[in-house]
Amino acid sequence: MTRKLKYAVIGTGAIGGYYGGRLASNGNDVHFLYHSEYAHVKAHGLQVDSVCGSFHLMAMNVYDSTSAMPQCDVVLVSLKSTQNHLLPQMLAPILHDGSIIILIQNGLGLEQELQRSLPHHIIAGGMAFICSSRVAPGHIVHADYGALTIAFQDRDMPQPLAEQIATDMNNAGIPCRVEGDLNLYRWRKLVWNIPFNGLTVALKTSTDKLMQDPASLQLVTDLMQEVAQGARACGAGIGQDFIDKMLSDTQKMKPYAPSMRLDYDNRRPMEIRAIYSNPVATARLAGVEMHKVEMLEQMLKFIEAHEY
Amino acid sequence: MTRKLKYAVIGTGAIGGYYGGRLASNGNDVHFLYHSEYAHVKAHGLQVDSVCGSFHLMAMNVYDSTSAMPQCDVVLVSLKSTQNHLLPQMLAPILHDGSIIILIQNGLGLEQELQRSLPHHIIAGGMAFICSSRVAPGHIVHADYGALTIAFQDRDMPQPLAEQIATDMNNAGIPCRVEGDLNLYRWRKLVWNIPFNGLTVALKTSTDKLMQDPASLQLVTDLMQEVAQGARACGAGIGQDFIDKMLSDTQKMKPYAPSMRLDYDNRRPMEIRAIYSNPVATARLAGVEMHKVEMLEQMLKFIEAHEY
Repeated sequence: MTRKLKYAVIGTGAIGGYYGGRLASNGNDVHFLYHSEYAHVKAHGLQVDSVCGSFHLMAMNVYDSTSAMPQCDVVLVSLKSTQNHLLPQMLAPILHDGSIIILIQNGLGLEQELQRSLPHHIIAGGMAFICSSRVAPGHIVHADYGALTIAFQDRDMPQPLAEQIATDMNNAGIPCRVEGDLNLYRWRKLVWNIPFNGLTVALKTSTDKLMQDPASLQLVTDLMQEVAQGARACGAGIGQDFIDKMLSDTQKMKPYAPSMRLDYDNRRPMEIRAIYSNPVATARLAGVEMHKVEMLEQMLKFIEAHEY
Repeated sequence: MTRKLKYAVIGTGAIGGYYGGRLASNGNDVHFLYHSEYAHVKAHGLQVDSVCGSFHLMAMNVYDSTSAMPQCDVVLVSLKSTQNHLLPQMLAPILHDGSIIILIQNGLGLEQELQRSLPHHIIAGGMAFICSSRVAPGHIVHADYGALTIAFQDRDMPQPLAEQIATDMNNAGIPCRVEGDLNLYRWRKLVWNIPFNGLTVALKTSTDKLMQDPASLQLVTDLMQEVAQGARACGAGIGQDFIDKMLSDTQKMKPYAPSMRLDYDNRRPMEIRAIYSNPVATARLAGVEMHKVEMLEQMLKFIEAHEY
């Protein structure tokens, strides 16, 4: 395997800009789709201030439409999942028969939804554990963490291509693992995302306050246990030990605004469907009612309808 | 039965002031305990602006301590339930062996709690269906409704005294029924109080908006169904027909700020224990988990700890 992979980054924000930027800065062939920041980045490049080493990229391959982009081997999708209905049309020009699509997004069922439009492509999930934010056009601040887990559906694992992606990432300074069992990794991410994304919005608070107050800590724990119960019914083995680890990791974290809280603060659409509605419906089909998770879903829908 | 009853009103706010004021204005012997408004009401009396006819009371029997009050036959308690720990000591001077205590309060288990300190007295519940608010010292505005249901525990029904109370009330212009099965009436009141008190605080909204939004209407319905399920496990027969009636009655109501929302707006302690914690714990003992009700309890505790 010495073929050099061609990467696309679709939706170059805080996450895609960071990962794609690191790949490009290490000499990989990366093509970036931009929307509102296109002209700025074309003129001034991308600045990444990172705890793992800052860098500036000039002379990037930037585009304002996929129709101008080359076909790519690996497509990193880092749009908000609220935009996913646009993906089939948007991706068509850049896919060849062997392209792999990696959805670096939050939520459940997104890969399966896209698979219905792209039945012959391998679609993996990317679970980013990173604190990164866009502070200005073409300017990203990476404040903490940075690991990326890429998970395939077991039947799909495209070795050795998957391993080459992981190698490219790790060589570029991105701690990256490639795994099977997408379903497990999606549910594991939800164990943290479901309580903290929704409650920081519904209670207008931060992760540290939720962990300190006994009533909200109990609610966080209850939500995690509902998610684990739903996960197990859907074939993802998540036990109390994983919940305990999530709680103690969060206890040690600096106060952190989850992505949904940032979306809410900026009155952007919240990823309610991917993070709440899909898991609630999926668990229900498997016979588990996630009551409190559903209540958070209902409250977030009300908040988006009335506070925006 | 021609003996004239002596009434006490303990905690003369929007509710006690209205009911006690109507009784006094119709010639009943009523003794009012005031706290911060004592001097003002002693000097200027009580003004009630009411959709059922306004009135002004002068020369009232007002007190700033129960130690100065006479023993009374009927004690109407309209304190906030967050003050109920004060009741045993507060009531001692005004009780004789046959005094009846009526807790015109929201929540579950309050009569049973007080009964532990006063094992030999009959303690009934008063369910007020009224929109009444205190707009200034000694000034109450009664905007809508006004009915009072007094419910005794079956074994306790003190006929004909109970009927005399109802007659006094009705003669004074208060639609009043006397019933057995306190447990049923307490749970019925919770079917409305649990969703609307908590959600108007947690979502910073009003009853009409909760009824209009499909997500919050479903949540209101879910909460009502959990309460009905808890009620049935505790021996109170509440079915879907009652829920449907509560929903359609609320659909027709003018936008309404429940008492907990008024407490929140004025940063007064919220009746979380009586309206949420006690029902959740009581239903749990009977084998029913009210998941969403408990989540509302947890969120309200967080809000009281962090927004006050």
